[in-house]
Amino acid sequence: MSLIAVGTMAFDAIETPFGKTDKIVGGSATYVAYSASNFVHDVKQVSIIGNDFDDATIADLEKRGVATEGVERVADKPSFFWSGRYHMDMNSRDTLVTDLNVLADFNPVIPDSYQGAEFLMLGNLDPKIQQNVIKQLKVRPKLIVLDTMNFWMDIALDALHDTLKLVDVLMVNDSEARQLTGEYSLVKAAKKVLSMGPKYLIIKKGEHGALLFHGNQVFFAPALPLEDVFDPTGAGDTFAGGFIGYIAKTKDISFENMKTAIIVGSAMASFCVEKFGPSRLQEVTKEEIDARIQEFVNLVQFDIDLV
Amino acid sequence: MSLIAVGTMAFDAIETPFGKTDKIVGGSATYVAYSASNFVHDVKQVSIIGNDFDDATIADLEKRGVATEGVERVADKPSFFWSGRYHMDMNSRDTLVTDLNVLADFNPVIPDSYQGAEFLMLGNLDPKIQQNVIKQLKVRPKLIVLDTMNFWMDIALDALHDTLKLVDVLMVNDSEARQLTGEYSLVKAAKKVLSMGPKYLIIKKGEHGALLFHGNQVFFAPALPLEDVFDPTGAGDTFAGGFIGYIAKTKDISFENMKTAIIVGSAMASFCVEKFGPSRLQEVTKEEIDARIQEFVNLVQFDIDLV
Repeated sequence: MSLIAVGTMAFDAIETPFGKTDKIVGGSATYVAYSASNFVHDVKQVSIIGNDFDDATIADLEKRGVATEGVERVADKPSFFWSGRYHMDMNSRDTLVTDLNVLADFNPVIPDSYQGAEFLMLGNLDPKIQQNVIKQLKVRPKLIVLDTMNFWMDIALDALHDTLKLVDVLMVNDSEARQLTGEYSLVKAAKKVLSMGPKYLIIKKGEHGALLFHGNQVFFAPALPLEDVFDPTGAGDTFAGGFIGYIAKTKDISFENMKTAIIVGSAMASFCVEKFGPSRLQEVTKEEIDARIQEFVNLVQFDIDLV
Repeated sequence: MSLIAVGTMAFDAIETPFGKTDKIVGGSATYVAYSASNFVHDVKQVSIIGNDFDDATIADLEKRGVATEGVERVADKPSFFWSGRYHMDMNSRDTLVTDLNVLADFNPVIPDSYQGAEFLMLGNLDPKIQQNVIKQLKVRPKLIVLDTMNFWMDIALDALHDTLKLVDVLMVNDSEARQLTGEYSLVKAAKKVLSMGPKYLIIKKGEHGALLFHGNQVFFAPALPLEDVFDPTGAGDTFAGGFIGYIAKTKDISFENMKTAIIVGSAMASFCVEKFGPSRLQEVTKEEIDARIQEFVNLVQFDIDLV
């Protein structure tokens, strides 16, 4: 039940209608690791950090069972930095600063101790880097999940298509699914994606929930209606971490189990947005997670007698 | 299990990215009646039509058990006419023509034969007219459902607030819930609406499903992911008709039964959008409705063991 998580570990500075932060810890792999480590204690992190990264975060992750041998430390550069400002609807945002820093040199090397991992979560990165990770693995994982974004569709579409042929699950948002396929209907978009390589497609719709497509089957997961969304940064990665973490824990890659894994991911994401950065994920307890998952059960449960 | 449905019976001319129609039958009460009459055969229609309205539609509705004694016929004016063009996303539209015609004189009189009805569906109309209908009823219905729109919030907010005090269920879309309350968060908006009079709030989110709020309880109903949305005209009224029709059939106004009624309404709305106007609703069979409701059950069903 070991899981390799590949992605950024970085600093973010965030403005929302509810407040703003100085540089705080962020990055896709950071959120994935915090989320997945609630379910598996064998997360193998692959990332790159600069000379300014926070030792306490590394120590905290290691305490949660996250291996950091695959996290490259660069002595003479700062970590990747992103700054953004969210609009009132919290679904759209403006990027204020993107300083690639160490990320410009990211060329991950998978440590020997990571070989044989059964699950692989490829966070949003250059699709060539994602492909390069897959090719380094001597045994193909049971399940490879890929996150990507519109940026790579704009500048590296061919490489993305090549990478898609190698993965099992693609995870994108609704506008990315539309851009990738040229189809407005998400059902039509899903059919196209499922002919590109992935056998499963997860479309994240933020406050509107998520859809899972596989063959002719579809599952609709709700999002929990929240009184306040404080900071959506990392919610998608936290969702991914809960999804792959639950699958790694249960070792079951069936469509039925993926449905449950999406509910788990949605529950984790609903914690993420309650505070700035990953701080809510650092403190959330198993009891809180179980109670939140039960809220999702209640949210969609109904009885019907067809008469 | 009788149900009074108040609203427009009209003509629409519709343009969507998939085609356009000449004048076809429409109107909120038309859609409500077609939808509800799948569940109850005692729908009592209250509306107003002009000298151009389609006799065949009246005859068809009567064959389905819809009483039309409360439908006023005006000999010297045409029926209400609306024309609109939908954008690619099918969630937004431009109104091209609004000819009130007979609707300008609509002052519904409830026939004696309608008195004692247990359920009342008030379609989107001037809130003073909606209120006037409630006041004509000698016995208060078990459940009064009110639809309204941003237009009345703009020009008749005080009257709308007065009317809200008299109803049990308010049914609006997400932007209307936000406008009515000044709250962006739908959870906060729901709390405010539930302090305005209605004990239940249904927020329709189109392709993103619907939410039901009552006290501190919330239910999330999915929308069926559709390959094509051909024409969304009347989908909200069809949803309303399925909702109130199922409740009238089961005579159960509990929160639990309302959840099921929302699924039934969502299933009916998913048929409505398959063809222009109410044509799909005129032909849909009980077997098709049952199969569609089963699709909704499958769409959200998942198993979880909290371990």
